[in-house]
Amino acid sequence: MREGDLIYLLDEKGKRHFIQLVKGMVKVPGLGVIDCSRLLSSTDGERVIVAGREFVLLTPRAPELMESLDRGAQVIMPKDAATIAFRLGIECGDVVVEAGVGSGSLTTALLSVVGPTGMVISIEMREDHASKARKNVERTGKSDRWQLHIGDARQVELEASANALVMDLPAPWEALENLGRYLNPGGRVCAYVPNVNQMEEAVKALRSRGYVEIEALENLQRTMEVHEGGVRPSFEMLGHTGYLIFGRKTAPRPGNG
Amino acid sequence: MREGDLIYLLDEKGKRHFIQLVKGMVKVPGLGVIDCSRLLSSTDGERVIVAGREFVLLTPRAPELMESLDRGAQVIMPKDAATIAFRLGIECGDVVVEAGVGSGSLTTALLSVVGPTGMVISIEMREDHASKARKNVERTGKSDRWQLHIGDARQVELEASANALVMDLPAPWEALENLGRYLNPGGRVCAYVPNVNQMEEAVKALRSRGYVEIEALENLQRTMEVHEGGVRPSFEMLGHTGYLIFGRKTAPRPGNG
Amino acid sequence: MREGDLIYLLDEKGKRHFIQLVKGMVKVPGLGVIDCSRLLSSTDGERVIVAGREFVLLTPRAPELMESLDRGAQVIMPKDAATIAFRLGIECGDVVVEAGVGSGSLTTALLSVVGPTGMVISIEMREDHASKARKNVERTGKSDRWQLHIGDARQVELEASANALVMDLPAPWEALENLGRYLNPGGRVCAYVPNVNQMEEAVKALRSRGYVEIEALENLQRTMEVHEGGVRPSFEMLGHTGYLIFGRKTAPRPGNG
Amino acid sequence: MREGDLIYLLDEKGKRHFIQLVKGMVKVPGLGVIDCSRLLSSTDGERVIVAGREFVLLTPRAPELMESLDRGAQVIMPKDAATIAFRLGIECGDVVVEAGVGSGSLTTALLSVVGPTGMVISIEMREDHASKARKNVERTGKSDRWQLHIGDARQVELEASANALVMDLPAPWEALENLGRYLNPGGRVCAYVPNVNQMEEAVKALRSRGYVEIEALENLQRTMEVHEGGVRPSFEMLGHTGYLIFGRKTAPRPGNG
Repeated sequence: MREGDLIYLLDEKGKRHFIQLVKGMVKVPGLGVIDCSRLLSSTDGERVIVAGREFVLLTPRAPELMESLDRGAQVIMPKDAATIAFRLGIECGDVVVEAGVGSGSLTTALLSVVGPTGMVISIEMREDHASKARKNVERTGKSDRWQLHIGDARQVELEASANALVMDLPAPWEALENLGRYLNPGGRVCAYVPNVNQMEEAVKALRSRGYVEIEALENLQRTMEVHEGGVRPSFEMLGHTGYLIFGRKTAPRPGNG
Repeated sequence: MREGDLIYLLDEKGKRHFIQLVKGMVKVPGLGVIDCSRLLSSTDGERVIVAGREFVLLTPRAPELMESLDRGAQVIMPKDAATIAFRLGIECGDVVVEAGVGSGSLTTALLSVVGPTGMVISIEMREDHASKARKNVERTGKSDRWQLHIGDARQVELEASANALVMDLPAPWEALENLGRYLNPGGRVCAYVPNVNQMEEAVKALRSRGYVEIEALENLQRTMEVHEGGVRPSFEMLGHTGYLIFGRKTAPRPGNG
Repeated sequence: MREGDLIYLLDEKGKRHFIQLVKGMVKVPGLGVIDCSRLLSSTDGERVIVAGREFVLLTPRAPELMESLDRGAQVIMPKDAATIAFRLGIECGDVVVEAGVGSGSLTTALLSVVGPTGMVISIEMREDHASKARKNVERTGKSDRWQLHIGDARQVELEASANALVMDLPAPWEALENLGRYLNPGGRVCAYVPNVNQMEEAVKALRSRGYVEIEALENLQRTMEVHEGGVRPSFEMLGHTGYLIFGRKTAPRPGNG
Repeated sequence: MREGDLIYLLDEKGKRHFIQLVKGMVKVPGLGVIDCSRLLSSTDGERVIVAGREFVLLTPRAPELMESLDRGAQVIMPKDAATIAFRLGIECGDVVVEAGVGSGSLTTALLSVVGPTGMVISIEMREDHASKARKNVERTGKSDRWQLHIGDARQVELEASANALVMDLPAPWEALENLGRYLNPGGRVCAYVPNVNQMEEAVKALRSRGYVEIEALENLQRTMEVHEGGVRPSFEMLGHTGYLIFGRKTAPRPGNG
């Protein structure tokens, strides 16, 4: 553990208490003022006593980082972020353009998979979202590979040659013409929208622009509970989050451009 | 495009024809004998004429590679591979231990996310599976970061210090004691099993060994179809694939070992 | 058992062989020519030997009758028929108007719940569907409480005062104005459609005509399999059948009509 | 409308206010003291002004009755009640045995489908549940066709020859031997349980007693929302309620009993 690292203390009820490590005392909501010095000499997965209670100290990665965000906008859920990262085929070193940054939830996941040699270029129209996302991303220690542009995705000018494009916008079909320019031929695009009508329009926009391998889908994820008395699916479940629409860009036909 | 690259030709019906590029003629099932030389000078996403038909030439990444495998064992579906890679928090450079390699379907996805600086160490008991997996993985061009051990996951000895462990085995609880030794404290484990009873036993095995953040879940994924006449969910859907069980290893208590 | 009764023989693999009982020999597809006389003296649930094989003789009710139909049109599945019958609150003695009879699958279910003192009035535009439905319904022995009109649901004139109205039509909103006239105030309506866009239009048509308690939903039903080796959801599942839209008719405002 | 009838007033937000009609004033929670005399002369589906607000007066049937119960025990949801009533093939005049009456939620649905010529015989071990169920059922005006026995389903003696048997008990396999005696050959049984392990045991109990057409399933039901801005599935959804296990009783083999 080093100063500045973000870790979390897992309590006996499964609640995570996030702490940015410093030398000395720090105030942690719910835990009071604690001495971080000892935590700095701990290892990942170690059981530690803080304020008289036992915790497991753990380092976060994308799944926990996403869930720990200071929210303010609708966030993309881990089940959908997983599908986006996987279906976009993102690998270390990739350049990804993200339009609509919200609280930086998906941004955090994308920064993890592109790795230190990659780049995520985010575009956000609203200053308040951008500001919250910046705070959230900086906390993760991965802002070295991140650019944030405040502007309109339909017009923004980028210096980018991207492997993948993600749009979490109300009208992704309006931004596709502009942002698609920054996508390499063969590059992959994803739009994320809550309504069926938006999904339909996004599919049609991809079709009309010659994108291929277009697919729209939704994820349902259900937790299973193992109790002493028996095993059953959880009563709690998200009935819907959003539709994911994917496609791949084709090269312009010779003589067309 | 370079010699040896694996590409696919997408036909007008959405079918993918995979080809390992060589200088000269090659026989492609369904397409006959074709001249690859021209394909070598094409770019990703380009429309090409082969045997009088138009195709889009595309390079595959994990999602397409997984679906293109020469199967022989039950494969892990992309919806589950996405959740596994994401929830295990795998990043570039990670070391992942995989027990039960099957056809190499999940292996392919893991190799993509660990990147060239990472490592996947696979263990497979059955020679026939190992042999098919080897063929499948070599085709992807990512076997430089892959070790395959033929042996029993309950006893195999490894030189590994892993960030993550995946078990696609009928009785993952029997292998956990041995394989858990190679997992770093704080490291993440996933077991994948088809039956509820196996899921229950896997959860209990993790609990009894002090793992934390244990969660079991299942994914349902449904495709949406956009037709001229209207939009609806697809009639086709997988009712079940398997349960995913996750947990994180804790460090041994001081004085216990 | 009496002559004319419809029964089925359940074989050891769970397959149902339907037979209309007569005195004497009858040809049953898959079983050859068999002597029904002995079956006439059997009781429900009895194990009988026919053509050297053991079967269980069983009498069908709505769930088995629906699945035994000679099909020809898309049929409504039991999971949806159950919800339709229940949410329409159908009781013995009710009068139900059904528009779009298809193969008579839902008709069969409705005839069972209205009972011998009730009535189902079906409207079907296509002669071929009507003819097949008639054959299917007559086989069930419940045609005494059934009227079938061949005609256009948008214009048909009925002598009816119905408790419930079901529309399995491509454009139920076009038939609502006409058929709604035959529904008692407080009566219940259901439209069944495969596409989201149709569902949306049906909901809007109900709203604009003052219907209340409008609700649209879809059912997913999954079979569980209990094997020696374990328990799991079935791999087979219908991803989608249709959307069900419900509402209740209000009385006209005084002075409006 | 007649004195004693149960009706509900639907307000502009879709909330139902149930009222048992009397001549004169009655106190209705949420509405204050209102004069029912005018309601007695209203018709189903009529818009009425009560306490200065407009409502639609509606008569309830099983779906609304079930949702209006004074609860106290876990209730069976309409989606499951619909499947139970349908798959048990219940028709007017049937005799149904119900073990585990809870708040009388399923009882209410069963009483509706057996009609005035049928009979529901309920068995409940707990006095407090029985008392609440009795109050709930009496309110529906269908208690003329209902018997309630307080006792142990494993031992209770009945004068019954039933078409169907429903068990909403923690261990239905323990009651099957006793209650199965009252089921006609060919009769249908349903067990409703929340856990997978219970479902497994119920299936095995039916198999070992020679029941046929055994099937276990679960229902997922999702509401669709039609907003001005678009259409989407509801975010709210029950992740799980229970498993439904069905089977049919066979006649004893000759000479065995």
